[in-house]
Amino acid sequence: MFYFIHKYSGGFDMLFLSEQEMWQSVTLEDVMDAIEDAYAIHKSGNYKMPDRFIAQRDKNMMLYMPCFLDSVIGTKMLSEFPDNPSLGIPYLNGLMILNDATTGLPKAIMNGSALTAMRTGAVGGVALRYLAPEDAASVGLVGCGMQGLHQLLYACEVRPITDIYLYDAYAKDLSGFIERLSARLASFGKNAIQIHTCADTRELAEHSRVLISATQAVDPLYPDDEELLRGKCFVAIGSWRPERRELPDAVWKLVKNAYTELPYACEESGDLKIPLEKGVLTQERVHFIEDLIEDTKQGHPHEQNETRCFKSVGMGLFDVRTAQLIYEKALGKGIGQKLNF
Amino acid sequence: MFYFIHKYSGGFDMLFLSEQEMWQSVTLEDVMDAIEDAYAIHKSGNYKMPDRFIAQRDKNMMLYMPCFLDSVIGTKMLSEFPDNPSLGIPYLNGLMILNDATTGLPKAIMNGSALTAMRTGAVGGVALRYLAPEDAASVGLVGCGMQGLHQLLYACEVRPITDIYLYDAYAKDLSGFIERLSARLASFGKNAIQIHTCADTRELAEHSRVLISATQAVDPLYPDDEELLRGKCFVAIGSWRPERRELPDAVWKLVKNAYTELPYACEESGDLKIPLEKGVLTQERVHFIEDLIEDTKQGHPHEQNETRCFKSVGMGLFDVRTAQLIYEKALGKGIGQKLNF
Repeated sequence: MFYFIHKYSGGFDMLFLSEQEMWQSVTLEDVMDAIEDAYAIHKSGNYKMPDRFIAQRDKNMMLYMPCFLDSVIGTKMLSEFPDNPSLGIPYLNGLMILNDATTGLPKAIMNGSALTAMRTGAVGGVALRYLAPEDAASVGLVGCGMQGLHQLLYACEVRPITDIYLYDAYAKDLSGFIERLSARLASFGKNAIQIHTCADTRELAEHSRVLISATQAVDPLYPDDEELLRGKCFVAIGSWRPERRELPDAVWKLVKNAYTELPYACEESGDLKIPLEKGVLTQERVHFIEDLIEDTKQGHPHEQNETRCFKSVGMGLFDVRTAQLIYEKALGKGIGQKLNF
Repeated sequence: MFYFIHKYSGGFDMLFLSEQEMWQSVTLEDVMDAIEDAYAIHKSGNYKMPDRFIAQRDKNMMLYMPCFLDSVIGTKMLSEFPDNPSLGIPYLNGLMILNDATTGLPKAIMNGSALTAMRTGAVGGVALRYLAPEDAASVGLVGCGMQGLHQLLYACEVRPITDIYLYDAYAKDLSGFIERLSARLASFGKNAIQIHTCADTRELAEHSRVLISATQAVDPLYPDDEELLRGKCFVAIGSWRPERRELPDAVWKLVKNAYTELPYACEESGDLKIPLEKGVLTQERVHFIEDLIEDTKQGHPHEQNETRCFKSVGMGLFDVRTAQLIYEKALGKGIGQKLNF
């Protein structure tokens, strides 16, 4: 018994979207809604998200992150090349590829590192939707990179932010970052926000109601000082390795509940793993933000004390759902380049 | 200690090549030379080719095949969706992505299933360069699909073929295939080749000096008849699973040496595994074609008796080296679509 290995290829179309076209296709609210959809899909179980696959040669890595939804298949393919920054090239680059869930045919290709920043910013934004005080007017950012910039865009979208505070241990001159941030904020109609730089994270924490960290810190970024940190809303999106942490013990002593996305965050992120091992945090106090979202939507918000914290480790579902939304919106608006392959 | 998660993305170019543009960029000889380069790279050990990674949901599969060369990184990303043929869509589709070996930045995207056919055809062509009698004028093909068509294009390039014989157990009406094959042969200036269809593989073998199979056969395709098969040159590129085979025992009794690409072919392909287990073939008689190529180039061709056989299981190195050549030739000729991502 034998048959055609396969028939003839070619003649199919896919859509290419550059970083700029991706941003033209969606609003910040759209992307946050996509993240909430992703949480709902995760809760429903109607997806398949294999472990990411890493191919490595010496210190350079190629990462493949596939995720099957019922309606689309997404693969984020990223390169992590540690020497790039010394060449003036981003450390992380890549593509997001969408395939049709019924036929497997490629449907769209877009900028994968732009997608990462876009959706990670929105993950932080969604956390703030549910955790930050309604009247929070100040936000502090530790780690002034591309991820941090996007975190601020969404923070300013979900809360009435008037002042941004910045700190980066490695970039003492933040003028370039401030210029890019101001331009991006202005493009979303936010021209009146004041941007300040801080000498250290203590100063940053003193001024900020919301504290976002987007670093690869090994040791906690903030002073381990309960009085300083009480009442803050923390979003920690960096340092996702087991031996690294962004947040000091004081945070875990202050919060009633810790929020994250996935069970394995407690092993993958030192921010949860280390305090759990030390007993500063207990497993019963770790909750999934998808439950908080659902409970809140059903009129049963979780009891919260004044200090709040969300630790993100990310998941492929965010990428594929966000990319799907961008693709659909782009198609609807006639944005992007059609490729016949 | 902490630093930028990453800098800003965007502003880089990559090249998109459709199936048609891929063929416009290279000649058949170019692609076969790329395959010989791939063998030389494999022999040198200067590459890294991780096991392919499969993500599966139900019966649908996404396959990721990365391969690092010193000069480029390639990832072939294929989908295998068994229900596609019933929808009139190829079973196998995909993309080939090239990344810069120094920075990881995406450099090129091209049609991955077209690449597969192009390079698999050339793998067969290279085998014929070294194994087929110089004056072979007839070639038979079992399995008239896209892979088979491409095998014939290369066979007609490397030997003075005047007659092609076709057989397919599933497609009794081969007129569509013959039309496509004639058009492709004509596009390479080969207008005078006669194309014949056969009632069975015995008739095919009687007429053909070279016998190519490109099927997913479970059981051997040809009669197990030494007299019928003596003196033929076999290229078997299908049925690469351990329980499947295209070639009957008679082939292994007739040949002095069996050629393949990789040590694991003896486990991965039933065409080698089954006769080895039965003792019809012995491990000492299995050779790597890269050694035959090198020895022949150095003026020491292997001793050959009249029946010859090459079993291909394929490797990612073929894809990446072929894609790299296509990319370089396309750049040189100004072919393809530049994408700023």
